[in-house]
Amino acid sequence: MTTDTILNAAVIGASGYTGADAVRLLARHPNVRLTALVAERRAGEAMDVVFPHFPAGPRAMLRTVDAVDWDQVDVAVCGLPHGAAQDVIAKLPARVKVVDMSADFRLRDVETYAQWYGRSHDHPALLADAVYGLTEHYRDALAGARLVACPGCFPTAALLMLLPLVAAGLVDAGDIVIDAKTGVSGAGRGLKEGNLFCEVAEALRPYGVAGHRHAPEIEQEIGRAAGAPPRPVSFTPHLVPMNRGELLTTHLRLADGATADDLRAALAARYADEPFVHLLEDGRIPSTAMTRGSNHAVLQVVADRIPGRAIAISALDNLVKGSAGQAVQNMNVMTGLPETRGLEQIGLFP
Amino acid sequence: MTTDTILNAAVIGASGYTGADAVRLLARHPNVRLTALVAERRAGEAMDVVFPHFPAGPRAMLRTVDAVDWDQVDVAVCGLPHGAAQDVIAKLPARVKVVDMSADFRLRDVETYAQWYGRSHDHPALLADAVYGLTEHYRDALAGARLVACPGCFPTAALLMLLPLVAAGLVDAGDIVIDAKTGVSGAGRGLKEGNLFCEVAEALRPYGVAGHRHAPEIEQEIGRAAGAPPRPVSFTPHLVPMNRGELLTTHLRLADGATADDLRAALAARYADEPFVHLLEDGRIPSTAMTRGSNHAVLQVVADRIPGRAIAISALDNLVKGSAGQAVQNMNVMTGLPETRGLEQIGLFP
Amino acid sequence: MTTDTILNAAVIGASGYTGADAVRLLARHPNVRLTALVAERRAGEAMDVVFPHFPAGPRAMLRTVDAVDWDQVDVAVCGLPHGAAQDVIAKLPARVKVVDMSADFRLRDVETYAQWYGRSHDHPALLADAVYGLTEHYRDALAGARLVACPGCFPTAALLMLLPLVAAGLVDAGDIVIDAKTGVSGAGRGLKEGNLFCEVAEALRPYGVAGHRHAPEIEQEIGRAAGAPPRPVSFTPHLVPMNRGELLTTHLRLADGATADDLRAALAARYADEPFVHLLEDGRIPSTAMTRGSNHAVLQVVADRIPGRAIAISALDNLVKGSAGQAVQNMNVMTGLPETRGLEQIGLFP
Amino acid sequence: MTTDTILNAAVIGASGYTGADAVRLLARHPNVRLTALVAERRAGEAMDVVFPHFPAGPRAMLRTVDAVDWDQVDVAVCGLPHGAAQDVIAKLPARVKVVDMSADFRLRDVETYAQWYGRSHDHPALLADAVYGLTEHYRDALAGARLVACPGCFPTAALLMLLPLVAAGLVDAGDIVIDAKTGVSGAGRGLKEGNLFCEVAEALRPYGVAGHRHAPEIEQEIGRAAGAPPRPVSFTPHLVPMNRGELLTTHLRLADGATADDLRAALAARYADEPFVHLLEDGRIPSTAMTRGSNHAVLQVVADRIPGRAIAISALDNLVKGSAGQAVQNMNVMTGLPETRGLEQIGLFP
Repeated sequence: MTTDTILNAAVIGASGYTGADAVRLLARHPNVRLTALVAERRAGEAMDVVFPHFPAGPRAMLRTVDAVDWDQVDVAVCGLPHGAAQDVIAKLPARVKVVDMSADFRLRDVETYAQWYGRSHDHPALLADAVYGLTEHYRDALAGARLVACPGCFPTAALLMLLPLVAAGLVDAGDIVIDAKTGVSGAGRGLKEGNLFCEVAEALRPYGVAGHRHAPEIEQEIGRAAGAPPRPVSFTPHLVPMNRGELLTTHLRLADGATADDLRAALAARYADEPFVHLLEDGRIPSTAMTRGSNHAVLQVVADRIPGRAIAISALDNLVKGSAGQAVQNMNVMTGLPETRGLEQIGLFP
Repeated sequence: MTTDTILNAAVIGASGYTGADAVRLLARHPNVRLTALVAERRAGEAMDVVFPHFPAGPRAMLRTVDAVDWDQVDVAVCGLPHGAAQDVIAKLPARVKVVDMSADFRLRDVETYAQWYGRSHDHPALLADAVYGLTEHYRDALAGARLVACPGCFPTAALLMLLPLVAAGLVDAGDIVIDAKTGVSGAGRGLKEGNLFCEVAEALRPYGVAGHRHAPEIEQEIGRAAGAPPRPVSFTPHLVPMNRGELLTTHLRLADGATADDLRAALAARYADEPFVHLLEDGRIPSTAMTRGSNHAVLQVVADRIPGRAIAISALDNLVKGSAGQAVQNMNVMTGLPETRGLEQIGLFP
Repeated sequence: MTTDTILNAAVIGASGYTGADAVRLLARHPNVRLTALVAERRAGEAMDVVFPHFPAGPRAMLRTVDAVDWDQVDVAVCGLPHGAAQDVIAKLPARVKVVDMSADFRLRDVETYAQWYGRSHDHPALLADAVYGLTEHYRDALAGARLVACPGCFPTAALLMLLPLVAAGLVDAGDIVIDAKTGVSGAGRGLKEGNLFCEVAEALRPYGVAGHRHAPEIEQEIGRAAGAPPRPVSFTPHLVPMNRGELLTTHLRLADGATADDLRAALAARYADEPFVHLLEDGRIPSTAMTRGSNHAVLQVVADRIPGRAIAISALDNLVKGSAGQAVQNMNVMTGLPETRGLEQIGLFP
Repeated sequence: MTTDTILNAAVIGASGYTGADAVRLLARHPNVRLTALVAERRAGEAMDVVFPHFPAGPRAMLRTVDAVDWDQVDVAVCGLPHGAAQDVIAKLPARVKVVDMSADFRLRDVETYAQWYGRSHDHPALLADAVYGLTEHYRDALAGARLVACPGCFPTAALLMLLPLVAAGLVDAGDIVIDAKTGVSGAGRGLKEGNLFCEVAEALRPYGVAGHRHAPEIEQEIGRAAGAPPRPVSFTPHLVPMNRGELLTTHLRLADGATADDLRAALAARYADEPFVHLLEDGRIPSTAMTRGSNHAVLQVVADRIPGRAIAISALDNLVKGSAGQAVQNMNVMTGLPETRGLEQIGLFP
């Protein structure tokens, strides 16, 4: 495509946080015309009423999926919850390219899906064609894809760090301990007591301990990189009183003879030319403040006090590189647009 | 100028919050090449070390004002504190256009300046030529200006609301009560106990009660709009535990016969064609969440329970429309660029 | 009563924030034995599961109001929402003293109640006997009361400031502008989108502009102090991203000849011997940080820049002096216990 | 001592957060008369000016250490930074019992101290007599101590979890990975850019990675429990945007044949009778919200997805059980008072 290409895009699930961040990005994407904002339960309401941050510009109304003229849509970014996502996507015309931010097409194995998500996968044929949208590691497959499953926010931060290390045999793939911290937007906009301001502010707590759904997704991809069946990883997320941002502190056992410097070297080589993934200078420590509102991810590895161990730290914005930003990045690759198009904005600080 | 114009720009005071937000905006401005980042005390450090949100892109080093080749600079955006600002600006070559975000060139009267800022104004000639940079109300004068004094963040939010109302004689200009609330970034990056996280989080307090420096600035401009000498306004700012955002609740006595609807009508007429100032639909209440990270300002007026009174609410991002964004907007007007250039980004929520 | 008295107390609505704060205070009250925690919807759950802050001590189970043996209860503190409160209180045995934290028995006029709360008042006889529980101003009536209606959190902060000033004729009772700011716990624990962390954090917004239910309550009491029918006050609350705390900035027009110092003198005289209400030293400005978790309220008055006006600031913890603490204070007065009993704790900072 | 004992107590370093929290607790301690508040740099100021949360009660003035009549002091709680602490404590009369909250008397080995704290230890004789004040594990030695070194906040949370497990041989003491998260008050009240509200809010970052001073302290005590020389632990603290609270997620390799249930059983047995340390019910996950403002610590162990591993979680308030509360607990033990005296308050939520 040329830089003059205009894609007609729809955002499905536009009343949620990931959907809204896709709208934020696509509304400023020079090659995109936003033609439909979909949200079943809030259909008929205006986007600037459903969210505060669209007070300017032409008013956009939310509508149902059935009210959209899909013949006029080239690409759909889907921010629905799992389950709802596959049901809606299955009904879209085959000519509409789909970037799905849900968990429905991430796990290759339908039984694993059923076990973790508590329902059957009803569209295995779609799943068979879906590409896992960790852009930096699936670029070739993405180029021709019709359906892309964007990774979960935690898997994105975990795998950007781990895939090069596991593939190079630098760490013990059977002893990976991921201690994750996330802002509250990762929990979505649903009305749960645990997401109320007063329950979250001035507090920190783990959740989903030893049972979070992002674990099997990480394991699947680590296994693929290791060229071996998936092995369990330790994965413990924590809820942090902030809106956005995600930081993973991954505690690693080094392969025999490997050092933290070797890990840094592997990451440096792997990501040297990547526009959105950055190994920090030696000594600089990732902070979520480095990525708030931007599509960047930052990485660092430090030698541990325990000999033979290393501490690997990765940070990103869970709604951008962890979700809507990566979705746009994948859309760019799928449609032949320059990969960074619409994603160049700098983070917001403070 | 054409849309191909490239301005060489410097940001002075780039290690502060307003300076850094100017860098954030100018770095993505299609007509700007950032040629110098100035910060005396942190000269020699890299911008991505001084701030977290520049982890990507070419590394930019901070330097002293004397280390800059000012012949290569077309426009300087200055984020220094008052006092320091005038001293530095006075030394810049006359051909460098200057957009100053400090308080040094806002007050027309040097005695008022001396009284409120505790030092003499040493450059009255510069002051005489300076234009007050409330863009929507000084557009013509800005077009040819060499030195622009961007309004304070509070005056911006206050005057966007009040100038049309006072000019139309709809409110009692002698009974204006401004109750202001601001995020902490308005206090700057200085090391003061009162700005520590633990002093601010989970707390709210007024400050500068009946003595804040933005009061005389508001009074000056209200007086001008009223065609009368400045009269005191009541102005009480409050510190809110958030990074960005500013909301003013202005309690007004209506002129005889005037109604809240009249005020709404005056604002609607005045700002109908403005890209960054928006009167909200009847019933919608401004929130700082509407403007976080964007250059937009939102306004609303509600009839009070007390007959003859109205409640006027205005919100903006203190670092953007209240500071660096308005500076860029002014730079665009001064240089003949489209006024919205580089300022189209949508706010960040959540 | 002697200091050895033991009251058997129940808390109704113990799964809400005000109810839980009553539990927190009563559990450490030396003259209280907590015999029943009531919460209809969460009956059968343990208090340490419903809230995080009771991890120690004997486990207390929530139960329905019908499961309580009311013969064993001397006093009930009720933290139910309005409407539900009156229905439950009407069924309690007459020998049970009741401290109600809802709005059901605050307004003396049933028509005003119906107008603001959208339902009829079904227990006017109870209402007729209820005492308004602003402790410092209704102490005598409280001593013999069976049913006490604790004031709303905003009216508490407003009236502690205003009643002495209006009673002394020092301010214009027809021109009272109250600009209020509150933490999120004041909105209760209900599942509303507007109370989610991501909707509130990093943002500030007014709500209930010119239509908040605490306005008629303030007006009723101001009218009583003025010896005149209620006149409207201007009342604009704002939601602040913090858990607890409430600060009111009241903009006042002084009576002819009155000064801010006169107001200070009136408050100093009125509250000199009060254990929980404090006029700050001249020049010190109230902050919610002064009262977080304690039953104290702090006051200050500053002369405005507009001649003839003053700025009056009051702060308290909306859940303590604004609700559960004042409830305990009232319980102490109703039962003849020392008024400060169980309320001596110092605030928590940071 | 009897319950009528009155101790004359001084707090040294009363202008810092830990000192102020000691003042908060001691001011309400029934057996304590606070006779001196010491803060060199703020001597002459009143405590209610230096901190917001003491607006009531008799005014207390800060003074220099030399201005105190130490003959009138029975016990001193010291909240000075390391280095300053030992210098001041060395000058106190031997009859004054000292509870030190600094790091100066925690490490038994002066060379380790010098290596980590960058200065020599100048009072090895004092050090030789100091007792490590992890109350639950040093109760006997504390009873007769003159000088007690309260553990660091992180070591308290780490060791309450680990000591019983290591002593019982249930975990691999050479493979302990502690991922710690703390509120900002742990960083003290010093004027550092990194502690400003805008640098911390809406962000999370690790700090002191593989080099935090609390690591050798943890290692010393683990070694003691293991009956072996100290071995390195992995320790990575993270700064969380909240005032108070600390949560440690400790990733453990189980000893051969041991299970997470065995770890739970060991903790249950060890802390069954402890008033302040609580193993939560199976399935409940610690949150810092469980301990805000109280002296309680909460523990939990969960089996990891990786066979042979467990996830151990401990939470407490860094300023209370992690500092001033444990200091008061130690003071009680040292002086023969009931151990819970003055520490019974319930946490504050929300």
